[in-house]
Amino acid sequence: MMSQAVAFPAIPSPDSACGERVSNYLDTLTKPPGSLGELEALTVTLARITGQDFPQVTPPAMLVFAADHGVAVEGVSAFPQEVTEQMVANFVSGGAAINVLARRLKARLEVVDIGVASDAPLTGVVNERIRPGTGNMLREDAMTRAQAEATLEVGARAAQRAIAAGCRCLIVGEMGIGNTTASSAVLAALSGAPLVDLVGPGTGLNSQRIVHKRQIIERALAARSPDPQDPLDVLAKVGGLEIGAMAGACLAAAALRVPVLVDGFIASVAALLGCRLEPALRPYLVFGHRSREPGHSHALAALDAQPLLSLDLCLGEGTGAALAFPVLDAACAILAEMATFADAGIQQAPQ
Amino acid sequence: MMSQAVAFPAIPSPDSACGERVSNYLDTLTKPPGSLGELEALTVTLARITGQDFPQVTPPAMLVFAADHGVAVEGVSAFPQEVTEQMVANFVSGGAAINVLARRLKARLEVVDIGVASDAPLTGVVNERIRPGTGNMLREDAMTRAQAEATLEVGARAAQRAIAAGCRCLIVGEMGIGNTTASSAVLAALSGAPLVDLVGPGTGLNSQRIVHKRQIIERALAARSPDPQDPLDVLAKVGGLEIGAMAGACLAAAALRVPVLVDGFIASVAALLGCRLEPALRPYLVFGHRSREPGHSHALAALDAQPLLSLDLCLGEGTGAALAFPVLDAACAILAEMATFADAGIQQAPQ
Repeated sequence: MMSQAVAFPAIPSPDSACGERVSNYLDTLTKPPGSLGELEALTVTLARITGQDFPQVTPPAMLVFAADHGVAVEGVSAFPQEVTEQMVANFVSGGAAINVLARRLKARLEVVDIGVASDAPLTGVVNERIRPGTGNMLREDAMTRAQAEATLEVGARAAQRAIAAGCRCLIVGEMGIGNTTASSAVLAALSGAPLVDLVGPGTGLNSQRIVHKRQIIERALAARSPDPQDPLDVLAKVGGLEIGAMAGACLAAAALRVPVLVDGFIASVAALLGCRLEPALRPYLVFGHRSREPGHSHALAALDAQPLLSLDLCLGEGTGAALAFPVLDAACAILAEMATFADAGIQQAPQ
Repeated sequence: MMSQAVAFPAIPSPDSACGERVSNYLDTLTKPPGSLGELEALTVTLARITGQDFPQVTPPAMLVFAADHGVAVEGVSAFPQEVTEQMVANFVSGGAAINVLARRLKARLEVVDIGVASDAPLTGVVNERIRPGTGNMLREDAMTRAQAEATLEVGARAAQRAIAAGCRCLIVGEMGIGNTTASSAVLAALSGAPLVDLVGPGTGLNSQRIVHKRQIIERALAARSPDPQDPLDVLAKVGGLEIGAMAGACLAAAALRVPVLVDGFIASVAALLGCRLEPALRPYLVFGHRSREPGHSHALAALDAQPLLSLDLCLGEGTGAALAFPVLDAACAILAEMATFADAGIQQAPQ
């Protein structure tokens, strides 16, 4: 049940019967039982999500939500706030890492400005700007509760557009200078884990500046005192516009039985927020990559999640999930295309 | 230096200057320094291997070497020996897991019969059969020293064909009922690691049968007493025809500055054999996947190798390496296609 005022389409239960059929079918394929490891587990997960005996994840959609963070003025990032807008321009011109990966995967890539701190609308993006960056959570709430609700709706609309365009797997990424600070604050509030374990270098702080970043978050959490039982309150008081949008996109995809491939730290915090809003979301999430950012392991633990890859990235944008996508795609292909023992006339191991 | 009679083309030193150029260039791309983790390390590795500032790994080649093992009569596998030939037919008709992955990657797939225990030549494969399966190492040497040398040459020819056809990365796989037994024996001889740590379920033995398999290997090693300082002696006495071919393919690819993406347990034992024959091979190897087979971690440790993926597979055929290939391809694309900070007009972090 969604515990908030926001009305989202209901998320159906996973299709256990379909998962069971796929699980049995896997043992008829020309390989020792279980020898494809995580790929076999993935096909069962995707069958349960989609209700299809031969699930497909192509083409994928990538949604990149961009927003600024008022707390950036406190010196919590290695990069100045202007870089958010500059990187959005880089996304639009195709020069960022996520662009390269999107081309490789023939993914539908959409960049949504949900709150870049710019005077003018940005070109080449979907303009859903709710406000030009959050408030500085050290001094004021990041956004109002109504704005927090609106972020979920912006995310949901983006997911629905991608799915209406035929996409069968959602990769959700972000850009926003200061957003590991907001994510750490949200994760601390939702999980109760100690900040000293959660706060990391983000885009490249040294150890001294990590201490400063942690102190800023501590003071902001004390000043705002978000209610851990009320995820929208946490989002509004110490969250980020793009974090809410990512949660909304996950919820909307799940409602349409489309799997979400979750990226790194910030995306996982958004996924956790989504699961706190609606626990029925969890079975629709597949985790792509374990980030180097230390808070990610805590977010994953709170979600009881094991990512497919661990390649030491800490970039965001959706890059970790994009790197994991070929594994999902391969799992689907193997299920659909491998011969059975009977078809191939191969002897099975004696039971 | 190759310590044996076999004359292989020399393996050049990696191009350190090229690796250094790529390493510096990575920090000009629009991402925080180092934030692409293993992908950055991979681009440097591939630059050192190929000597190219913008290395490419497409199209890949997959070589699957198939052979039987005399020791199979001792009941060391969950599957009967006939399955080797049956699976080769499955490769030829496109129904095995490696076929599915090869199609996904648009790879050149070649199946080489280097020693299937069949009366007649197999159709649809490259016929390089040296003998119809090895001798039962419990009773006799697996093969003669001359045959062991010939396996290296068969592998080298296959690699050279693939590279002459334009392939820029080599994935080497295998099929052979009983070949985790031979691989465990070779690894024990080369590494000195205790068999109790190395011997595992292969295609699905229960714990009782694993004990039996280990006892067979112990007795074979005692009876054959291969010389750990003489890799060809180890291959001849307790190895396998496909294991030698895989080592030869690696050596030939390295001589042509083509990276080898190593698969799981059996491929890693072959890679170790290759490195013992010629230590200059090691920098040309990238490791794709950590197998569930317990011996693999020991083979990787002996090679000082960390695989890219860990997806709990234990199938062989080259499947683990094939799943890792998109990571290599993505790393190359990111290096070649990302914008620099200067190009994109983005502020860098103050140093």
